[in-house]
Amino acid sequence: MTFPVVGMVGGGQLARMTHEAGIPLGIRFRLLSDTPQDSAAQVVSDVVIGDYRDLDTLRDFARGCDVITFDHEHVPTEHLRALEAEGIPVRPGPEALVHAQDKGVMRARLDAIGVPCPRHRIVTDPADAVAFATEVEGGGFPIVLKTVRGGYDGKGVWIVRSEEDARAPFLAGVPVLAEEKVDFVRELAANVVRSPHGQAVAYPVVESRQVDGVCDTVIAPAPGLPEDRALEAQRLALRVAEELGVVGHLAVELFETRDGRVLVNELAMRPHNSGHWTQDGAVTSQFANHVRAVLDLPLGDPRPRARWTVMANVLGGDYPDMYQGYLHCMARDPQLKIHMYGKDVKPGRKVGHVNTYGDDLDDVLERARHAADYLRGTIVE
Amino acid sequence: MTFPVVGMVGGGQLARMTHEAGIPLGIRFRLLSDTPQDSAAQVVSDVVIGDYRDLDTLRDFARGCDVITFDHEHVPTEHLRALEAEGIPVRPGPEALVHAQDKGVMRARLDAIGVPCPRHRIVTDPADAVAFATEVEGGGFPIVLKTVRGGYDGKGVWIVRSEEDARAPFLAGVPVLAEEKVDFVRELAANVVRSPHGQAVAYPVVESRQVDGVCDTVIAPAPGLPEDRALEAQRLALRVAEELGVVGHLAVELFETRDGRVLVNELAMRPHNSGHWTQDGAVTSQFANHVRAVLDLPLGDPRPRARWTVMANVLGGDYPDMYQGYLHCMARDPQLKIHMYGKDVKPGRKVGHVNTYGDDLDDVLERARHAADYLRGTIVE
Repeated sequence: MTFPVVGMVGGGQLARMTHEAGIPLGIRFRLLSDTPQDSAAQVVSDVVIGDYRDLDTLRDFARGCDVITFDHEHVPTEHLRALEAEGIPVRPGPEALVHAQDKGVMRARLDAIGVPCPRHRIVTDPADAVAFATEVEGGGFPIVLKTVRGGYDGKGVWIVRSEEDARAPFLAGVPVLAEEKVDFVRELAANVVRSPHGQAVAYPVVESRQVDGVCDTVIAPAPGLPEDRALEAQRLALRVAEELGVVGHLAVELFETRDGRVLVNELAMRPHNSGHWTQDGAVTSQFANHVRAVLDLPLGDPRPRARWTVMANVLGGDYPDMYQGYLHCMARDPQLKIHMYGKDVKPGRKVGHVNTYGDDLDDVLERARHAADYLRGTIVE
Repeated sequence: MTFPVVGMVGGGQLARMTHEAGIPLGIRFRLLSDTPQDSAAQVVSDVVIGDYRDLDTLRDFARGCDVITFDHEHVPTEHLRALEAEGIPVRPGPEALVHAQDKGVMRARLDAIGVPCPRHRIVTDPADAVAFATEVEGGGFPIVLKTVRGGYDGKGVWIVRSEEDARAPFLAGVPVLAEEKVDFVRELAANVVRSPHGQAVAYPVVESRQVDGVCDTVIAPAPGLPEDRALEAQRLALRVAEELGVVGHLAVELFETRDGRVLVNELAMRPHNSGHWTQDGAVTSQFANHVRAVLDLPLGDPRPRARWTVMANVLGGDYPDMYQGYLHCMARDPQLKIHMYGKDVKPGRKVGHVNTYGDDLDDVLERARHAADYLRGTIVE
């Protein structure tokens, strides 16, 4: 048997769904997980329990893996460099991944290659944040402050309306990036996958709707997006992937501005929530293509299989028993695709998602929203 | 967490693919496997290694499972009755499963409910087999002899042309069933899924092409099958599922005769090779619907997602390294879906399958055949 072993660092739902997508390829999947109860650890046979922040743990884990990839961006960059120096293929590699780990590095690099971003600079203290606000053309408060490392799902991000507001971001002792608050119409995501030998595929550009800073609904393709703007976004994402040397799935979160431009909001170098629709809506899912990319296999067709596909996140509510909800949801919609992560329900926590597809966007949206709300317990019929 | 635990007896590829299909539902999957190297044991976290022929092993395994289901039909019927008597839900139950375990019981039952079968009777010795051949109207040799238990993939089945030929089937000391050799045009399969509360869904009737008694290619739906004959086959399968009290996936293998009838060849009460196309070609796969059925959840939509879907089995050849073949196959056909089982290559062994789909049957067939032949090593370009 020469089937390779893919080592996945991190036991969250992205690892769980990557394992699921890897099973048909006959590859071996090895997981480094914090606890045996983690989402992916529940469904993978070869699990190492350990701390990804410890280099020796990573080294031991990597022994016997043909390639290392990630469920999250939190592995210290210097550890990844150490692994790579020891000859272990790390995909995406540290020189690419640092752009998803450090928003300051990411902004500087995107500026250097001329990719449009919100206006921004590193600020040193609350007074400097006030100064940045006054510098922004047509600007002033509110501005956005972000710690350059450690944020996700709205954490590590502050909407700041005063010098008083601007104090909190500096408490963590991490450099703080200030950005203009973009007057956007909606958020888009341009997702691409790139392999080490440079092949790349682009998924249709999607619309991503956020609630309280957390992704709520994704519509594929983004409704009403002019073809030239969609192409521009796809080209931008392919260019970022190539310039930064990304291997695997790259999600480029974008703002569509009122004046018809797209600006880069965030980068993620792993399967991403804005690509979950591909499990049921595309010929090849983001997870399958991520596996193919990190193994340097030819990539699969990213085209959609349905006119419209909608993904709705299932967040934890007050109702802990989501399995009971299956009866109603499955009976109501025999085409509904449920994806649960095996996670305990906590209010606001992403514990699963649903996908729906079809020809009528209103119907597809309604079915996804109904199922997500019913499973959460927000609605009871 | 009230998500149930599904106990799967048997570690083959059907268990592997059922686990894959269960991951999105967030259920727990527990496997009873002969060895840790078995196909499913490679990808499941909760594995018990043990012998399914031992009742105490089954009892220990079943403790903590909410329901027991199967990768194969080889668990002794009396053990299943014992588990059921102890209050463990066994799905399909022993009273149904015995019809897939014992071809004599199956034929008697199908006769009793008026389901058309090849002419048949139990024969006692080679001379009695000769007598059966002379009894068959318009018949004579060849006839088919089958041991009533233990056969699969052409094993336990003999095409008999003389009294001399008829000796081998009796050597195992198992009762032998004689059947007329049906003059069929082709083989079909009508696959249905039934839940404990009696809901049932029928997949499109497929054509199944065999080579040397082993399934080679499946075409969904069966090309040129008149709608009334397809409906007749689906109704027949639904009726068998109901009359026999099947829970889960039921494959009804059929002969389509030259004079336009369908006759039942075999029954399988588990996911089946003739349903592998549903993984990529139907809204809900046979594996997902089998899980839903054994948990008494509402069943998913069985309808096709493409005009044509073709499944081709990948058999072991002289070429042990199938992973190398991925490069050419994936580059040639970015829409190809590969499903490998993690099994060592042995000549003639089913080690995987591929699915293709599209609007043009010739193209879809060619792509599937090419990939299966290339992976096996029968062709080199």
